[in-house]
Amino acid sequence: NTLKAAVDLERRGKPLRAGRLLEHAFSLAPRLPMILIQYGEHLEKHQNNIIKADAMYLRALEISPANSRALQNRRRTRPLVEELDTLMLSRINGKRDELSKIPGSSSALRRIKKEAYYQYVYHTAGIEGNTMTLSQTRMILETRLSVGGKSVMEHNEILGLDSALKFINTTLVNRVGRITVQDILEIHRRVLGHVDPLEAGHFRTTQVFVSDHVPPPPTKLQVLMNNFVAWLNSPHAQRLHPIKYSALAHYKLVYIHPFSDGNGRTARLLMNFLLMQAGYPPVIIRKQDRMMYYNCLNEANEGDTRPFFRFIAHCTEKTVDVYLWAT
Amino acid sequence: NTLKAAVDLERRGKPLRAGRLLEHAFSLAPRLPMILIQYGEHLEKHQNNIIKADAMYLRALEISPANSRALQNRRRTRPLVEELDTLMLSRINGKRDELSKIPGSSSALRRIKKEAYYQYVYHTAGIEGNTMTLSQTRMILETRLSVGGKSVMEHNEILGLDSALKFINTTLVNRVGRITVQDILEIHRRVLGHVDPLEAGHFRTTQVFVSDHVPPPPTKLQVLMNNFVAWLNSPHAQRLHPIKYSALAHYKLVYIHPFSDGNGRTARLLMNFLLMQAGYPPVIIRKQDRMMYYNCLNEANEGDTRPFFRFIAHCTEKTVDVYLWAT
Ligand SMILES: Nc1ncnc2c1ncn2[C@@H]1O[C@H](COP(=O)(O)OP(=O)(O)OP(=O)(O)O)[C@@H](O)[C@H]1O
Ligand SMILES: Nc1ncnc2c1ncn2[C@@H]1O[C@H](COP(=O)(O)OP(=O)(O)OP(=O)(O)O)[C@@H](O)[C@H]1O
Ligand SMILES: [Mg+2]
Ligand SMILES: [Mg+2]
Repeated sequence: NTLKAAVDLERRGKPLRAGRLLEHAFSLAPRLPMILIQYGEHLEKHQNNIIKADAMYLRALEISPANSRALQNRRRTRPLVEELDTLMLSRINGKRDELSKIPGSSSALRRIKKEAYYQYVYHTAGIEGNTMTLSQTRMILETRLSVGGKSVMEHNEILGLDSALKFINTTLVNRVGRITVQDILEIHRRVLGHVDPLEAGHFRTTQVFVSDHVPPPPTKLQVLMNNFVAWLNSPHAQRLHPIKYSALAHYKLVYIHPFSDGNGRTARLLMNFLLMQAGYPPVIIRKQDRMMYYNCLNEANEGDTRPFFRFIAHCTEKTVDVYLWAT
Repeated sequence: NTLKAAVDLERRGKPLRAGRLLEHAFSLAPRLPMILIQYGEHLEKHQNNIIKADAMYLRALEISPANSRALQNRRRTRPLVEELDTLMLSRINGKRDELSKIPGSSSALRRIKKEAYYQYVYHTAGIEGNTMTLSQTRMILETRLSVGGKSVMEHNEILGLDSALKFINTTLVNRVGRITVQDILEIHRRVLGHVDPLEAGHFRTTQVFVSDHVPPPPTKLQVLMNNFVAWLNSPHAQRLHPIKYSALAHYKLVYIHPFSDGNGRTARLLMNFLLMQAGYPPVIIRKQDRMMYYNCLNEANEGDTRPFFRFIAHCTEKTVDVYLWAT
């Protein structure tokens, strides 16, 4: 009925109200192909949002793979969306190349690198709920002294991220050869070491739940992690664009959720390790983008990893922009 | 010459000045049998210090095993010293038995136990240089919040001791069966875990030095620790008086010095675990007795473990006295 009303409004030349109605219908019934298709067509026609429209058709096809209207629409949007993504990636590549021309000896570059280091620790700890401010984070890392009244463990979260970053920057980045499960365990051992020395560096042994996502049971972790690492090292994966590759790595790791805690931090570090190997600066997912970040992971769980990849690309571009601006 | 002068003074009825001279001679030449013997005889005759005199004769005999005057003197002092030690032990046993009559439900007992817990953490951390006060230690353990301006690692030392104590009190003490090398590694993993998660629970891989003591090389640690644990479980060792047994265990562990750091804390915890199994409260070696503690360990390295054992007995008695006084 809502759908009919929307189609009617659209026909009577009231696209704004039609749009609101369709959005509402979608939120009520996010798995009804007819609504998804209608909403997609509206997004294409009146909001020029090809990317979101394509996501709607893809969603409809996952529910009803033979739906001819969805198939037909997608034949139109899919190449466009791919082109848009490719454009975005080459724009970011161009900025990365520009950045790589700045000599490593540049004092401005060194300054922004250091600043970005503290920002990274601040945001990646903050996403999970750490309440230290940026300047407290910096103070702890520079002096190793504590901030009165904060929990000891919040300090240890900061120290763990510092230790993991140093491990990546001094040991992993310069190493040649395959990535191993042990590498990921070693990152985690450092991330969580000061907080929980007994769990750090070990797979979880219990079931866990992450909002709507139910990660695989602990008995499957060893095999899944071996497969994950095989994928990381596969020629197929390494032929992907580095941003796609590292975003997928991030997603696959939090999907498996191999640890009882610290999965997000470890996945963000792994992603940055892969990005750094490809010449990108370590990417910051900002505390304030947390909701977007979680939503994109949810969409990936529902079958579409592209919003997450675009989110990471967006964060990468922002980070590169800041570097370019500062140097 | 100093020796001659001392003998002369003694003969002329000036024992005080003779004593000072002998003490001085001993500190200048602590390995000269003649001085050791003369000083020992002086201690017996004028200071009634049989224990120290006996230690002097023993020291002389270690340098010159056939020295007849030392042998003869020791035949006299040794049984006396053994009797004194036995008397001391049965006095402490008596106090322990008195303590064990107090019901576990006694609120005074529970209060002193809790107080002693914080005191223990405070002193065992303080011995190594931790600067937290007793009330800061208590605050950290009760609230898990940090004390502004102290290093994060000082907090982690406190948390590590708490974690190791909980492990001993809940897991080890109630377990029956042999003590294993793994048990000692698990204690250490908790003691050092928050401070140095990568080293915690692992033997050192480098040579270390502890004041004058040169512990065995890292290659020998596995064998020495196996032997140590075999000794701990041997009927011979378990027939020793619990205070002797646990003091020796403490000494043997710091002699081997299996870890790069945290050896003292782990050895003190192991000692307390053994004492608790024998019905003694956990013993506190106080921060202010640090010099005495180190000196006794030095004497043990020079061949006489009795001063260290007496030091531990003394600490045990003091601790039991406090419990009795408080209940
Ligand atoms: N729906 C989801 N599906 C898969 N992974 C998710 C989902 N929502 C969140 N996550 C991931 O799980 C992480 C939280 O897991 P965990 O608590 O183990 O990690 P953390 O490092 O302690 O926390 P954080 O990443 O928030 O700092 C999130 O950061 C995110 O990366
Ligand atoms: N001469 C010695 N011979 C053997 N052991 C010694 C000697 N002097 C000190 N020790 C032991 O070594 C310990 C110090 O070693 P280490 O630093 O590894 O331990 P810790 O737990 O970090 O320090 P601490 O015991 O001071 O808290 C001392 O506490 C003591 O038990
Ligand atoms: Mg978490
Ligand atoms: Mg030390």
